[in-house]
Amino acid sequence: MPYINIKVTDEQVTKTQKQQLIEGATQLVVDILNKDPKTTHVVIDEVPVDNWGVCGTQYSELKK
Amino acid sequence: MPYINIKVTDEQVTKTQKQQLIEGATQLVVDILNKDPKTTHVVIDEVPVDNWGVCGTQYSELKK
Amino acid sequence: MPYINIKVTDEQVTKTQKQQLIEGATQLVVDILNKDPKTTHVVIDEVPVDNWGVCGTQYSELKK
Amino acid sequence: MPYINIKVTDEQVTKTQKQQLIEGATQLVVDILNKDPKTTHVVIDEVPVDNWGVCGTQYSELKK
Amino acid sequence: MPYINIKVTDEQVTKTQKQQLIEGATQLVVDILNKDPKTTHVVIDEVPVDNWGVCGTQYSELKK
Amino acid sequence: MPYINIKVTDEQVTKTQKQQLIEGATQLVVDILNKDPKTTHVVIDEVPVDNWGVCGTQYSELKK
Repeated sequence: MPYINIKVTDEQVTKTQKQQLIEGATQLVVDILNKDPKTTHVVIDEVPVDNWGVCGTQYSELKK
Repeated sequence: MPYINIKVTDEQVTKTQKQQLIEGATQLVVDILNKDPKTTHVVIDEVPVDNWGVCGTQYSELKK
Repeated sequence: MPYINIKVTDEQVTKTQKQQLIEGATQLVVDILNKDPKTTHVVIDEVPVDNWGVCGTQYSELKK
Repeated sequence: MPYINIKVTDEQVTKTQKQQLIEGATQLVVDILNKDPKTTHVVIDEVPVDNWGVCGTQYSELKK
Repeated sequence: MPYINIKVTDEQVTKTQKQQLIEGATQLVVDILNKDPKTTHVVIDEVPVDNWGVCGTQYSELKK
Repeated sequence: MPYINIKVTDEQVTKTQKQQLIEGATQLVVDILNKDPKTTHVVIDEVPVDNWGVCGTQYSELKK
């Protein structure tokens, strides 16, 4: 019964890419840990670029 | 000092339903664990239906 | 497909209390949001009393 | 490699305040734990006022 | 700058399996979203079997 | 009513350092966002070094 949360910056992730992330993350725990995909949940969070920082600086500034 | 996070798919949860979730979740930890409601926080996250997957498939596709 | 995370301080929560929290939290989303219990997951985190603070002070100090 | 998540109610936090939170939280783990800022991530979540409750009541009602 | 959190029940996940999860999850966001692996963090949480419930029942009871 | 979660690798963080993190993180949201410290919670998670990866590699291997 894995629960996988993927947080990425909100930069036009497409519906297809989200489906690929969900499929790939589910397959990962099926392959490596032999988990049941039926009880495997994946949740993707898209974080605004002003709300994520690394090295003390907002990502919206870093990517300029 | 419990902190309770409820993640649901974003499907028109009403303000009243949110209030009921907050009230019910708080009551739960008061009743079972004898916690102080004044330090009990409940946060509800509404996840877009494209961003939640189970069994390797997006919920937006599953509910079709 | 709700996912509910309950964080409490680690103070001898019994197996029975955990079962009651899981049961009660699941019932909450079934009753209020008409969710399917089969896809409702509840995860309880027990946080050491030195690792939780409120009002700027460790809970291990507050409860003295 | 700290990861810091700051959840606040969604009440017009400015871009500058977000930058200050990211800078301050990063400095905290650098100063206290001697962590490398380059691998320190800070994520800010802004939670709608209907979705956060304390003492069993929605924050949108409490602040009235 | 993805952050990926994988929660599984605490059932003797080996160090090698953890490395495979970290490697696979990182590769996923590199392949699908073209992210930089150097800023991709993966955190695995192992949840005690009494602390995870599905369908209102503790996993420690379900697996009996 | 901020909730702040600080995740660090589990490497002998002392009780005093935890108190300093709690105090500093609380002060941050008081100073920058004018929040009430009485409703500000800080939770520190210490993650085993085998369970955290960056750049696709376990931290326990990276720090060798």
